[in-house]
This record gives sequence, structure tokens and C-alpha cells, in this order.
Amino acid sequence: MTAQPGLYLEDLAVGMRFHAGPIAISADDIKRFAGEFDPQPFHLDEAAAMGTFFQGLAASGWHTASLTMRLLTLGGGAPFASGVIGAGMTIEWPRPTRPGDELSVESEILEIVPSRSKLGRATMTIRTTTTNQRGEAVQILTGKLLAFARSTV
Amino acid sequence: MTAQPGLYLEDLAVGMRFHAGPIAISADDIKRFAGEFDPQPFHLDEAAAMGTFFQGLAASGWHTASLTMRLLTLGGGAPFASGVIGAGMTIEWPRPTRPGDELSVESEILEIVPSRSKLGRATMTIRTTTTNQRGEAVQILTGKLLAFARSTV
Repeated sequence: MTAQPGLYLEDLAVGMRFHAGPIAISADDIKRFAGEFDPQPFHLDEAAAMGTFFQGLAASGWHTASLTMRLLTLGGGAPFASGVIGAGMTIEWPRPTRPGDELSVESEILEIVPSRSKLGRATMTIRTTTTNQRGEAVQILTGKLLAFARSTV
Repeated sequence: MTAQPGLYLEDLAVGMRFHAGPIAISADDIKRFAGEFDPQPFHLDEAAAMGTFFQGLAASGWHTASLTMRLLTLGGGAPFASGVIGAGMTIEWPRPTRPGDELSVESEILEIVPSRSKLGRATMTIRTTTTNQRGEAVQILTGKLLAFARSTV
């Protein structure tokens, strides 16, 4: 592994926060993603969506999650030298992403636990809140990410 | 909401299982998804991926999650009349999805809790395990889904 720009384990601390965005999502984006991965009426068609639980076109939760990942990687929302490698996470969608929304992410390091078996490696717990242009949370992702020390890469 | 084919709350019971798949994933699929949502070297390029934690090209976890959703919806892996509407979940990726993998899903209803406030509505806890062609788990998703009784739709 060659060294990359970004933060190493030595640079990280509980309470650090990172921000990225916004990125816009259109009705066409929503329908295209849903057509490939989540073809349910409330993600595909405005009229059909009106009569459903969502009462209007809504993005697939996996689309919101994927755009969040785009903001964390390409958008610089998780500037870690070793990348964004998650082993597991919890995810909540308190409200849907809608056509025309502009999504941003704010992440905070909640915990850093050094590996017992592997020197220079740790697991970080990070909470990433994805918000729309009104500051309303559309997703709360709490994940465990790997972090590596400079000496190990 | 008009009635759709599929199972209603009255039809569902703890222990019921559902299966769907397989669906194949290619190196090109992996790179295309990653290029849009998770452009990290280990998801984009075979040679660059060799020197990383993954030691070879691996699909974004969000790609595995999105294909799982395709199997649950289009593939019939979650045949619920009200669709697949999740409020929250936990997700683990015990090993990566690789080029050429063929993914299947097996879901089991773990719990059904009637809503206290809304008649004919319940929250189901479902565990969906996504496996590759060797039967190895690449994702374990435990989610809370909405379920509706016939009379409410």
C-alpha cells in the first residue's frame, strides 16, 4: 500500500468533525437508481407514488446511502489515508430524500479503539448525518471504519 | 393505495423464509457503480486494488446492498404487499463481493411487533443474508420493515 494524502491514525481524535456537500439529486436520478436496484412504485413514478406511504416520489434509501458514500469519498467528507473501509454499521432513514434535495454530510468520530492483535490498526466509530437543504436529517449512519497508523502503510 | 399481489400482515409469521437469486456481478459492474458512488482504488482498478486491504478488486459495500435490494424487490425475495419499506437496519459485510460472484438472498422473519398507535400496521424484523456462489455470506442485513394488514390498504 503506498501512502496517500489524508489522515492517519496518529492524526485522528474523538470529537473531530468533517463536512462535505452539497450534492443535488433530481427526479431522474431517483428513477434511474430505482430502476436498477429498487423498482418500487414510490421510487419510480410521481403519480404512482402519491397513493403510497411516501405520498410522493422518494429516493431509495440505498440511493441516499450511496450518495452519502460519494460525499464521504469523492467529496472529501472522510479524509482518511487508508480510505473509507467499513466492517459494519447501523443506518436509519428518519425521512425520505426527495427530488430536488441537496444533500450534505457531517461526520464525527465517536470512538477510536486500537486493535489488540494488529499493531498500528484501530477501529473508529463514526456517525455520519446526511441532511437536506433545510438541515433535516435524511439518514443517520453509525459505522465502524478501519484506521491505520503511518508506520503500517 | 391499491391492493397489490403479495403478502399482507395476516399472512406473515415469525420463522417464514424467502429466497431469491442468483444475480451475477461483473468487474465492469463493480467499476461503474464505484465510479459514481464510491471511487476508491480497490473498487475501481484491479492493479491498484492488489496493494490494498482488499488485495484485489472488490465491490463497494453499497453495491452489495443495492443488489440485495434488487433481489428483494425485482427478484421476489421480499414478497410483501406493501413493498419493502425500511425504517432502519444494521448491516455487516463479513467478506467482499468479487467480480464474477453470483449473489443470492435468504431472508427470515425474526419478529413481528404490532403498532400500538396504528391499527393494522406492524414492524417486522427481518434478517437477510446475501451469499456468493460458494454459500459464503457477503452481507448480513437486519432490518425493520413496515407491514400492513389487508384492511388498511
